[in-house]
Amino acid sequence: MADVRSVARRIEVAPAAGGVTAPTGFSAGAVHCGIKASPSALDLAVLAADAPVPAAALFTTNLAQAAPVTVSRQHLERTGGTARAVVVNSGCANACTGAQGLAHAVQMAAETAAALGCAPEQVLVASTGVIGVTLKIDRVVSGIRAAVAGLGRMNGAEAARAIMTTDPFPKEHAVTVETARGRFTVGGMTKGSGMIEPNMATMLGFLTTDAQVSPAVLRRALELSARDTFNAITVDGECSTNDSLFALASGASGVAIDDELYPALVEGLLAVSRELAVGIVRGGEGATKVIAVTVSDARTVDEARQVARTIANSPLVKTAVHGADPNWGRIVAAAGRSGVHFDINRLTVHVGGTLLFERGRPHDESAPVAAGHLQGAAVQIDVSLGSGGGVSATIWTCDLSAEYVRINGEYRT
Amino acid sequence: MADVRSVARRIEVAPAAGGVTAPTGFSAGAVHCGIKASPSALDLAVLAADAPVPAAALFTTNLAQAAPVTVSRQHLERTGGTARAVVVNSGCANACTGAQGLAHAVQMAAETAAALGCAPEQVLVASTGVIGVTLKIDRVVSGIRAAVAGLGRMNGAEAARAIMTTDPFPKEHAVTVETARGRFTVGGMTKGSGMIEPNMATMLGFLTTDAQVSPAVLRRALELSARDTFNAITVDGECSTNDSLFALASGASGVAIDDELYPALVEGLLAVSRELAVGIVRGGEGATKVIAVTVSDARTVDEARQVARTIANSPLVKTAVHGADPNWGRIVAAAGRSGVHFDINRLTVHVGGTLLFERGRPHDESAPVAAGHLQGAAVQIDVSLGSGGGVSATIWTCDLSAEYVRINGEYRT
Repeated sequence: MADVRSVARRIEVAPAAGGVTAPTGFSAGAVHCGIKASPSALDLAVLAADAPVPAAALFTTNLAQAAPVTVSRQHLERTGGTARAVVVNSGCANACTGAQGLAHAVQMAAETAAALGCAPEQVLVASTGVIGVTLKIDRVVSGIRAAVAGLGRMNGAEAARAIMTTDPFPKEHAVTVETARGRFTVGGMTKGSGMIEPNMATMLGFLTTDAQVSPAVLRRALELSARDTFNAITVDGECSTNDSLFALASGASGVAIDDELYPALVEGLLAVSRELAVGIVRGGEGATKVIAVTVSDARTVDEARQVARTIANSPLVKTAVHGADPNWGRIVAAAGRSGVHFDINRLTVHVGGTLLFERGRPHDESAPVAAGHLQGAAVQIDVSLGSGGGVSATIWTCDLSAEYVRINGEYRT
Repeated sequence: MADVRSVARRIEVAPAAGGVTAPTGFSAGAVHCGIKASPSALDLAVLAADAPVPAAALFTTNLAQAAPVTVSRQHLERTGGTARAVVVNSGCANACTGAQGLAHAVQMAAETAAALGCAPEQVLVASTGVIGVTLKIDRVVSGIRAAVAGLGRMNGAEAARAIMTTDPFPKEHAVTVETARGRFTVGGMTKGSGMIEPNMATMLGFLTTDAQVSPAVLRRALELSARDTFNAITVDGECSTNDSLFALASGASGVAIDDELYPALVEGLLAVSRELAVGIVRGGEGATKVIAVTVSDARTVDEARQVARTIANSPLVKTAVHGADPNWGRIVAAAGRSGVHFDINRLTVHVGGTLLFERGRPHDESAPVAAGHLQGAAVQIDVSLGSGGGVSATIWTCDLSAEYVRINGEYRT
């Protein structure tokens, strides 16, 4: 794995306008086809490249995989990693829908391919919404035709809205990456936790770039950038049936990614992914605060991540942060049950940079300062395991509020 | 391990009055010593046998172990498994309190021993309440003397109240066990999730019996009975710094536990433990329903437990049950991310005995019946993995309510 940081000074990443259609070579179309009840709510999007281009994807590890996940995986295998388009609907996850659901996902790809004039396996499929409900396939088919007819380079923002369920805001981002051999662009959009009729949230992410890159290298860069972004967030510890992250590379910038420029591609993907991933947490169900949990001085990255994840998923830590309570005892207790071995007498806990617990000794005199930090919308928790290993990792999460319970406790009908 | 069920017909387990002092040979004393603010709130209890008796204990697996856990573990090791008494305070967990906390736990044992006239290592120690706060040791010492002075055979109910934090009700239970060779009694008390100033909940359990049993056999029976009771419940997936389960056996019934009667001892411990453990769930923070999650037809007990535990800890399942939403999709999704491998096409889900999902096919026509079941206070979720292995396990949990967030989100001061 290339050390991204050591070459970062040779590349420059800057924010750019737009989202998935910011890189050259991509267009989008979004329509209301009738899955969502409100006539003004967009619920279907097509993201298309001008021709089949290198593509990569990461999918949920849940055994209960939705039909679109199965179909997208198969299509990428058949093409060896290229795609012309991704078709996405919101409002229905097409998960746990049996053979009929699979047929519907296949049909979504086929209809999109027919409208674009490409092979069906060049189309990837994503769905998000309620589990166990059958797609209104006739409406979806009409929607696909309308979305393809309306494809345009300026429609990225509409696509970002069309993939939302009860996300409180759309999430798109783009950056330009300046390298010694030219500039390329990375764009993206994502949707996070939310629902039409309260149900399982599903994470979908779409990244585009006009860098010129092979499917294998694109996949490697996607895995690396997702590790510390999309795979480093948690709202409620639930891994869904539909989680999918796609990347398409048009090559239109003419900047070819070789070993030297690989770090530039990773930096670009990381910059967009981090913004989108933290956006998911900020828009998490009932969230009022984004919490970054950084565990340092672990022996390995996996151990650092495991401790950080246990703290980030602890309902007692999340409710304490919600209540602006600098309750370091809950942080220590969560670390202690994480399954990672460490010496409790070397543990230190900072909240918002304020030391609250050090080598067995509380610093409760500093609690009011930490409580002040917790009143804000961006919370930083730092835990050092004191292993001497010097390895760290960060997991982002949100607080747990009564609103989360309300959203998820309401009866679907 | 003996097959408990095959000999169950030779033994008869019947409910009895009282709790920890129901078995012959035990007395209890409970006082208000001043840890809790309210003068009417009992906050210290001593449970004593008439002489040092066989004892066993199970402790938290959290790396951050409270001082009383460390001391109790050391004392049992030194005595080879006997104890005269357990001293318990509520209102302060004496956890993450460093060298001073350890000295306080040692002192609690020494003061109790002095008052009883036994060796300090014959006394076990337990604390529950806020983490990271130093014990008011002077008040505790006075309380210990008063509690020992007031020891009596009728004080089990007071002891059960003295170990409560914000438990909504005290939890005690006792049974008599009739065997071919005589009758013995098993009693117990426990406290679950709650807090004085909102903080980490700690589970404490105390079992007594007048059966005559060696420390090694008592320990084996305790482990076996805890597996499907105290270790099969979860309120919020948090394993605390203080969790402890003690068992003391006076032998006063004269019924000696040999291989033939071992199942009778296990049955007795199971009966009391099940009642107490489910009581903890019923009194869980913010709980309005007890949920039994039974996973059947797994390949191994560990796999059945892992799937059941993942479902039981799923905030989406717990909020759905809270809202009486028969949302089987969330149950399937939680099972799918449990880490246990199974064939999703063989999975079936019943809620309250109503089939909702079978081999890839939803039965949403039955949702209203299942929703009716979820209106009640006792919820049954059954998931069959269809592995052909035929192994099952049950985990008990409670629903997740806005009240849980309120309790744990309030600032401690």
